[in-house]
Amino acid sequence: MATAAPEKTTAQGAGTKWVWLFREGNATMRDLLGGKGAGLAEMTNAGLPVPPGFTITTDACNAYYRNGKQFPDGLWDQAMSALQDVEGAAGKRLGDPGNPLLVSVRSGAKFSMPGMMDTILNLGLNDTTVEGMVANTSNPRFAYDSYRRFIQMYGNVVLNIDKDAFEHALAQQKEKAGVQGDTELSADDLKAVIAAYKAIVKRETGQDFPTDPQAQLRGAVEAVFASWNNDRAIVYRRREKISDDLGTAVNVQTMVFGNMGPDSGTGVAFTRNPSTGAKELFGDYLKNAQGEDVVAGIRTPSHISEMRDDPNLPGVYDEFVRYAQRLERHYKDMQDLEFTIERGKLYMLQTRSGKRTGGAAVKIAVDLVNEGIIDQKTAVQRVPPGDLVQLLYPVIDPNSGAKPVATGTRAGPGAAIGMVTFTAERAEELGKAGEKVILVRRETSPEDLRGMIEAQGILTSTGGPTSHAAVVARGMGKSCIVGAKDVVILPDESAFTVNGQTVREGEWITLDGTTGSIYIGQVPTVEPELGADFHTVMQWADQFRTTGVRANADVPRDATKAREFGAEGIGLCRTEHMFFDDPSKPQEERTRTMREMILADTETARRAALERLLPFQQGDFEGLFRAMDGFPVTIRTLDPPLHEFLPREEEQIAELAQITGRTVEQVRSRIEALHEQNPMLGFRGCRLGIQYPEITEMQVRAIFRAAVAVSKDGVKVHPEIMIPLVSDVNELKLQEEIVRRVAKEELEGVGADVPYQVGTMIELPRAALLANTIAEVAEFFSFGTNDLTQTTFGLSRDDSGRFLPMYVEQKILKDDPFQTLDREGVGQLVKLGTERGRSARPDLKVGICGEHGGDPSSVEFCHQVGLNYVSCSPFRVPIARLAAAQAALATGDRDR
Amino acid sequence: MATAAPEKTTAQGAGTKWVWLFREGNATMRDLLGGKGAGLAEMTNAGLPVPPGFTITTDACNAYYRNGKQFPDGLWDQAMSALQDVEGAAGKRLGDPGNPLLVSVRSGAKFSMPGMMDTILNLGLNDTTVEGMVANTSNPRFAYDSYRRFIQMYGNVVLNIDKDAFEHALAQQKEKAGVQGDTELSADDLKAVIAAYKAIVKRETGQDFPTDPQAQLRGAVEAVFASWNNDRAIVYRRREKISDDLGTAVNVQTMVFGNMGPDSGTGVAFTRNPSTGAKELFGDYLKNAQGEDVVAGIRTPSHISEMRDDPNLPGVYDEFVRYAQRLERHYKDMQDLEFTIERGKLYMLQTRSGKRTGGAAVKIAVDLVNEGIIDQKTAVQRVPPGDLVQLLYPVIDPNSGAKPVATGTRAGPGAAIGMVTFTAERAEELGKAGEKVILVRRETSPEDLRGMIEAQGILTSTGGPTSHAAVVARGMGKSCIVGAKDVVILPDESAFTVNGQTVREGEWITLDGTTGSIYIGQVPTVEPELGADFHTVMQWADQFRTTGVRANADVPRDATKAREFGAEGIGLCRTEHMFFDDPSKPQEERTRTMREMILADTETARRAALERLLPFQQGDFEGLFRAMDGFPVTIRTLDPPLHEFLPREEEQIAELAQITGRTVEQVRSRIEALHEQNPMLGFRGCRLGIQYPEITEMQVRAIFRAAVAVSKDGVKVHPEIMIPLVSDVNELKLQEEIVRRVAKEELEGVGADVPYQVGTMIELPRAALLANTIAEVAEFFSFGTNDLTQTTFGLSRDDSGRFLPMYVEQKILKDDPFQTLDREGVGQLVKLGTERGRSARPDLKVGICGEHGGDPSSVEFCHQVGLNYVSCSPFRVPIARLAAAQAALATGDRDR
Repeated sequence: MATAAPEKTTAQGAGTKWVWLFREGNATMRDLLGGKGAGLAEMTNAGLPVPPGFTITTDACNAYYRNGKQFPDGLWDQAMSALQDVEGAAGKRLGDPGNPLLVSVRSGAKFSMPGMMDTILNLGLNDTTVEGMVANTSNPRFAYDSYRRFIQMYGNVVLNIDKDAFEHALAQQKEKAGVQGDTELSADDLKAVIAAYKAIVKRETGQDFPTDPQAQLRGAVEAVFASWNNDRAIVYRRREKISDDLGTAVNVQTMVFGNMGPDSGTGVAFTRNPSTGAKELFGDYLKNAQGEDVVAGIRTPSHISEMRDDPNLPGVYDEFVRYAQRLERHYKDMQDLEFTIERGKLYMLQTRSGKRTGGAAVKIAVDLVNEGIIDQKTAVQRVPPGDLVQLLYPVIDPNSGAKPVATGTRAGPGAAIGMVTFTAERAEELGKAGEKVILVRRETSPEDLRGMIEAQGILTSTGGPTSHAAVVARGMGKSCIVGAKDVVILPDESAFTVNGQTVREGEWITLDGTTGSIYIGQVPTVEPELGADFHTVMQWADQFRTTGVRANADVPRDATKAREFGAEGIGLCRTEHMFFDDPSKPQEERTRTMREMILADTETARRAALERLLPFQQGDFEGLFRAMDGFPVTIRTLDPPLHEFLPREEEQIAELAQITGRTVEQVRSRIEALHEQNPMLGFRGCRLGIQYPEITEMQVRAIFRAAVAVSKDGVKVHPEIMIPLVSDVNELKLQEEIVRRVAKEELEGVGADVPYQVGTMIELPRAALLANTIAEVAEFFSFGTNDLTQTTFGLSRDDSGRFLPMYVEQKILKDDPFQTLDREGVGQLVKLGTERGRSARPDLKVGICGEHGGDPSSVEFCHQVGLNYVSCSPFRVPIARLAAAQAALATGDRDR
Repeated sequence: MATAAPEKTTAQGAGTKWVWLFREGNATMRDLLGGKGAGLAEMTNAGLPVPPGFTITTDACNAYYRNGKQFPDGLWDQAMSALQDVEGAAGKRLGDPGNPLLVSVRSGAKFSMPGMMDTILNLGLNDTTVEGMVANTSNPRFAYDSYRRFIQMYGNVVLNIDKDAFEHALAQQKEKAGVQGDTELSADDLKAVIAAYKAIVKRETGQDFPTDPQAQLRGAVEAVFASWNNDRAIVYRRREKISDDLGTAVNVQTMVFGNMGPDSGTGVAFTRNPSTGAKELFGDYLKNAQGEDVVAGIRTPSHISEMRDDPNLPGVYDEFVRYAQRLERHYKDMQDLEFTIERGKLYMLQTRSGKRTGGAAVKIAVDLVNEGIIDQKTAVQRVPPGDLVQLLYPVIDPNSGAKPVATGTRAGPGAAIGMVTFTAERAEELGKAGEKVILVRRETSPEDLRGMIEAQGILTSTGGPTSHAAVVARGMGKSCIVGAKDVVILPDESAFTVNGQTVREGEWITLDGTTGSIYIGQVPTVEPELGADFHTVMQWADQFRTTGVRANADVPRDATKAREFGAEGIGLCRTEHMFFDDPSKPQEERTRTMREMILADTETARRAALERLLPFQQGDFEGLFRAMDGFPVTIRTLDPPLHEFLPREEEQIAELAQITGRTVEQVRSRIEALHEQNPMLGFRGCRLGIQYPEITEMQVRAIFRAAVAVSKDGVKVHPEIMIPLVSDVNELKLQEEIVRRVAKEELEGVGADVPYQVGTMIELPRAALLANTIAEVAEFFSFGTNDLTQTTFGLSRDDSGRFLPMYVEQKILKDDPFQTLDREGVGQLVKLGTERGRSARPDLKVGICGEHGGDPSSVEFCHQVGLNYVSCSPFRVPIARLAAAQAALATGDRDR
C-alpha cells in the first residue's frame, strides 16, 4: 500500500467522491463500497426499509494508509454532508439533546470477513444526549445501558483500553448491587458504571471520554480503517487468500433497536436451507434483543417461522418473507439476511449471498434454473467445484460432537472407521476376513498395496499430500491422512501415541480425510448420495467446457468408476502396480517374478522372467480397454526405481534367495547395490527402458496383444503409449523405436489395425525447455506436474512435510504447490512447453496428469494455457469437469 | 546427412569443383580438402618435394551420401582430368605397361582420425603393369610383393574380404617354401601367392580381381567414402566429439617407395620434442622400408639425427631440417611430419600440427613468442586448458609399464600411492602417524572428512563425478576415483575384490585420478613442476580474459592455494564443513556441539549450542579473510540436510545419547525422524535458515565478528553472503532481513564499516525462471550448476553412475552434464536467469560456482552469456583462467 505514487493521492484528493449515501450506491459497487455497503445501497434503492446511512469507500481506506494514516482531502467534509442528509431522513440530529441521532459504525470489505474487524454501536451518546434518549424512549435503564455499552465498546475499539478493565468495573457494580446478571442492574447502577467507565478512560488515556459526537464519529471511522490491519484480520485474509490491498469501507448507519420491548427483536435468515438447499426460509429470531445478544448465545432464539404467529409482531413475518423473496429474485441467488424489528417496524440490515454446503449449492443452482431465475451457465458457475467433494465421500456426522485428537495433511477425502493395524499383511488378513481396519504406517510403499486395498483408510505419520500413500489412496478414492506429526508409532509395542494418548493395535479410530482430522473411537458418519441434481449440473457443465477430462486409473475397477464419473478416457495408467501381486490372484506370483527379473544377471534371464509377466499385464490391459471402450487409454511404461520392487524384510529376502538360487548375502548385496541416495532423481522412468529395452518391449507387446484380443469382441481401443521422465528427445527416440517395432510385429502378425500414439510425460524442466525438439517425436505431451513441481522447486513431495506447511502459513508461498499448480514458476514451464511443443507439431495433444488435474484453480490454468485435457483421480473427475466448465465460461469460450 | 534438400545436390552438381590438384589448394582449405589434403597442397605450393596428386573434396563425400551413395555429377570427369595432370608431372601413366604410375588412395578428414579410415597403396598394379614395374626397378621381388600387398589391401578394404583368407594363403605359401618371414619369400613364391589371392577374390566375390586401373581407382575412392561411416570411425568421432557430417576428403597421390634399397627409407618427425617442448628435431627413420613397416613395429627405427651421418643418404638430413624449419615457420606451430626417401630423393608426405603434452604445449607457446613467430594472443590460444592438469598433479611414470586392474570415474586428478584403509578413523590414525594411505569406501560422507584429509587418495565403489567424495577431493586437490564398479568392498573381511584379485587392508595400491585407473602395488610417479613458462602463459591469459576467476574454498589452506593459482576471490565457501571437527583441534568438539544443536527441542537450547559454535566459525572466517585480503569472499549459509551431521554408528549414537542426556532410543528416533526419501530435494538450504533463523543469525554474526577482527589488522574484507536453494524471493527476503539486522548490530556496536553484499545461489529451475523478482532483493547471483543440473534433468549426481556413462557412450547426451554444462537445457536457464536478473537490477553481479566453473567448455559458455566470474576448485583456477582468456579471444573481446 505504501508503494503507490504520491501523485495518485493528490489526484484522488478533494475531487474524489469518498462518501456515498446508501441511496447513491448499488449492488455492483462491492469493490468500492464493500459487500455490506453495496447490499445496503441496493436494498435502499429497491425500496426496502433500511435505516438511513452512508458508506465511506475502500478507496478512502487505502488513501488513508497512503497518506500516513491521515484522512484524504475532502473525506471529512463529504462525511459531514452525508450525515446531514441522514439526519434529515431519520428526523434526528447527531448530538441533538432533544432528539439525538445514534449511529452504528461498521467495517465492510469486498469479501465478508465475519468478526474480523471492528464495530461500534450507539455512537452519538454523551451525558446530554443520553437524557434525550431517556425522554424519547421513556426507558432510562435502556438509555443508560446503551450509553454504558457505547463507552465500553468505544473505549476498547477506538481508545485501545483493555476490555477487562471495563468488565471488572461492571462486575464490581454487580457485586455492590448484589445481582448476578447485567440485566438486573438498575438505571442508577448503570449510571454508577458509566462514571466508573469514564474514570477508566481518563486513567488509561489521560483524557476525558470524548463528548462531541462528531469527534466520536471521526475516531470510530479511523478505528475501522485501523482494524483492516489488525492481526486477526491479516491472519484471516491469509487463510482465505484475500488480498491485503483491497481496504475496507466504513458504513455509518442510523441505529435501530431490537431490544425496545416485546414488539421488537432481531434475527438472521437464509432464503433457502443452506444445508440441504431446500426452498424454505431458514433462520432464527430473538425477541427484545440486539444482534449482540444473538451472537453471545445467552438466550435461545426461535425458528423464524414462529414469527408468523407472534401476536406482538403482526404482519412482520409476511413482510419479511416478501422482502426475502424480492431480494433473492433481485440477486438471483440464495440470500443471507439480517433484520431488526423496532417497536413493530421491520428494518433490513444486511443481505448477501449465503454460504452453503456442496449439496445445497447443487440443489439451489438446479432449482433456480427450474424456477427461471438463472440460466444454466450461471448455475454451473454457482457451484464451487471443490465443494463437490462433500457429495462424493462419506462425511463425519456434523451432529456427532466428536473432537479430533490430532490432525494431519488431507490426502484422500472422506470419513473412515476401522481398527488400527500396523502392517499391510495384517490389514490384508483382517480386511479379507471382513473386518474394518485402518492401516497406520510411518509411510507406505508399493509393497503395502495389498493392505491398503483392504483397509478402510490409511494414516501415515510422515509424507506430504503427494506421497505414495496419498497418491494411491486418492486413486482408490480411499480416506487418507498423511504427515500426522503427532502420531508417533511404536513398532515394538504395536501401538502409537498421539498427544498423550496411546492407541493399540485392534483399537478403533476414525479418520476424516476431508478435513485431516483424526478421532479416537468410532465416530458416526453420513454416507454420500449422488442425486439427480448433481447429474444435471454435470450435464450442463459438459455443455460449456472445452477442456477434456480424463482419469488416472490403473485397474479396471478404477476405470469403471472413472467412466461413471464422466471421464473421457484414461490420462494416466501407471503400469508399476501391475508388477505387484493382485490380492485376488496370488497364484500369479507377479511380485516374485518381477523380483527375479530385477535380480537377473543376463538379458536372457531377464527376458525369461518378463515372458512370464507378459500375460498378467496383458490381462490387466484388456480389462482397462474394455472399461474404456471407445475412449483413449494413456499407458505409461515402467517408471519407479527397481529397488521399490525388492523386499526389505529378512524373511522375504531369504525367500527370494531361495527362489533365485542365490545366497542371502548375494540378494542383500544386490538390493544394497540398487539403493539410491535420491531415488526420485535416480535410475527410473525411461532410463530403465533404455538400459533394459526388453522391459519396454514386453510392456508394449502386452498392450498390443490386449488391444488385439479385445478388438475381436468389438471393443474400440485407442492406446496412447507414454514414455516417462524424458529429458532429451534422444531418449524418446530410442523408446519410440521399440514401441513402433513391437506394435508392427504384433499387429502385422494378426492383420489387426489398432490406431495408437506415442508420446511422453513432460515432468522435468529440461523436457519443457526443449519441448520443440521432443515434439518432433512425441505425438502427445502429458505434463506430469507432480514431478515437474518437485524438480522445478527442488522439493521432494515426500519430505516437504517438515517445512512446506510453515511456508504456506507464513505466505512464503501462496499455496502448497503440490495441491495447486504454481502458476508463476511451474506454470511458466507448462505454458512454454506447450507453446514450444506446438511450434514443432501444431496438432500436438497436450494434457496434464499430475495431482493438479483435479484441483479447480489448476484446471482453470490448464484451460487458459490451452491444454486439451486434464486427468485426475476418478473421484475428482466431477470436480475437474465443473472447474473446466467454469474456466471456459470465465474466458467466454463458445459452447462446444 | 540424409536430411539435406535434394535441390542442394543438384545445385552442387556438374558445376561444382569436386577435385583439386595439390597445387590448386592451400592450408586454409581444411574444411574442404581435409587436414592431409590441405597440408599437401600447402607444401606443394611452398615448393617442397611432394609427390604429385589431387584431392577429392569432403563436399564430394557428403554429396555422395546425399545421392544415395552415387558420385555427384562431374566428380569422375574432374578426377580423370586431374589424373592426367598428375601423370604429366610424374612422367608416368596409370595402366601404362611400360612406365606405370602407381598411386596411393588415402582418406583425410578435417580432423585427424589416425588409423580410423582406410588407405590403399600401390593402386594401378595388374598382371601387365607389374611387369613394367619389374623392368623399371629391376627388382622383381619388390614388384610382386607390391602387387601381392595391393591385392590383399584392395580385397580387404574395397571388396570386404576377410583379411584372414589372405593371411592364410600367405602362410600356406611360406610353409610350402619352408620359410618363416614374408621377406624370405622369392619372386616366384610371391607369384604363387598372387595367384592364390586372385582365386580368393573370385571365390569370395564371384568376380575377377579388377584389372582396369581406373576401375580400381573408382572402387578405392568409394571405399574411402564408405570408411567415413564404418564402426570404428563413428566410435572415434563420438569419443573425440567430431561431427558426423563433416565427411572425408580422398587424396590420390603418386606412390614413392622407401623400400627400394639402402638409399631409401621412411620416417616421421616432430619439429620440437612433443613430450617436453624442447626445440629439437624429434623422430625416427627406418631404412629401406615403407610406412607400413614402421607402424608394424617389426624393425626398430633409428633416431632421426642418425640420418645426418648415413653415407647412403648424403645431404638428406640437412634438406629435411631445412623443410622442417620452413614448415614450422610457415604454420607458426610445431609440426608432425612424414617423409619418404626414394633412391636418395626426399619426399614430404604429410605435415600437420603435432600433438603434445600440456607441459610441451606451454613451453612451445612461450618459445614461439620469444622467437617472434607468434604473438601472445596466439600463444594463449595454443594451450588446451584441460591439458594444464598434467602440470598440476603427479602423474604415473609413463615408463612404468604398469597395467591397471580396473578403472573408475575420474574424480580428482593426479596419482596417489598408499596402503588401503577402509575407515576414515583408520586413515586418520595412520595418516597422522606419517603413513601413506588410500581411503577405500563405498561412498563418503562429511563424517569421513578427517580421514580424507589424511589420505593420499580416495577410492569409492559408487557415486559419480560430483558425489561427496569427488567434490571434496577436487576441492583439496586430492587424487580420487569414484564409481569403480568392479571394486567390491567386503567390510567383514577388511578387504576388497577387484576383477578376481583380493586386496586387503594395509596392502598398497596406486590411483591415477587423471585417467581413472587403479593399480595394485606401488607404481612410480612423476611429480609436477610449475615452471616459469607456465606463469608466463598465465600472465598473458590474464591480459586477455574479461571473465573473473574465483575459487571454491572452505578453509584457509585452500584459500591460500587458490590465491597462488591466481584466484580473484572466493566464489563459494561452504560453511557446513566448519561444523565438523577440525582434526588439528579436536578439543573444539564442533561435531558434538552441532549434534546437540540439531537434537535441541527448544529454540533456547538451539541457541545455546549455536553460541558455542560461533567462535569456531568466526575463527574459520578470520582465516579465510586473511588469506583473501582485498578480494571478495562469498560465504554460503548452511546448506546440507541436518541428518548429514548425525552419527550412523551405534557407538556414536550411544555417546551422543549420553552427552545430551537422552536415551539411545530417543536419539535413534530423532535420527530416524530426520531421515529423508530424497535429501537432495528435502529440508536443506535456506529452508533450514527459515525454519531456524537462529542458525543463519549465528553464521552471519560469526562472519561480521571475523570481519571486524581482521579489519583491525588492516585486512580488507568484502564478504558476500549467499543464501542457498532459494526458489522464491520471499525466502530470500526473510534471510536477507536477518543478514542486514545482524550486520547492523555487529558493525554499529563497534563503529566498524565492512562493505558487504547479500545474494543468492540460483540452483533451482524456479529461481532461474523468477530471477527478475529475486534480483529485486539479491545483489548478486551465483549459479549453482551442480544442483541446477540435477533438478533440470531430474538426475541425482550420486545415483547417475548406473546409466549416465551409457548415455554419453550411446550419444543420448552429448556430454556428461555434470562435467560440461548442458548448454541446450541448463544453459537456457543460466542465460534466462542472467537476463531476467539484470532486467531487474542492471548491475547484478553474476557468477557460477558449480563444478562447471573449472571446465573449459563451460567457462566459454559462461563468458558468452556474460557472467562476471566463474568459481572452481583451487587446482582448476589456472584452467579456468586460460579457458576464459581463450573464450574472450574467440569472441574478439577487447583487452581489459
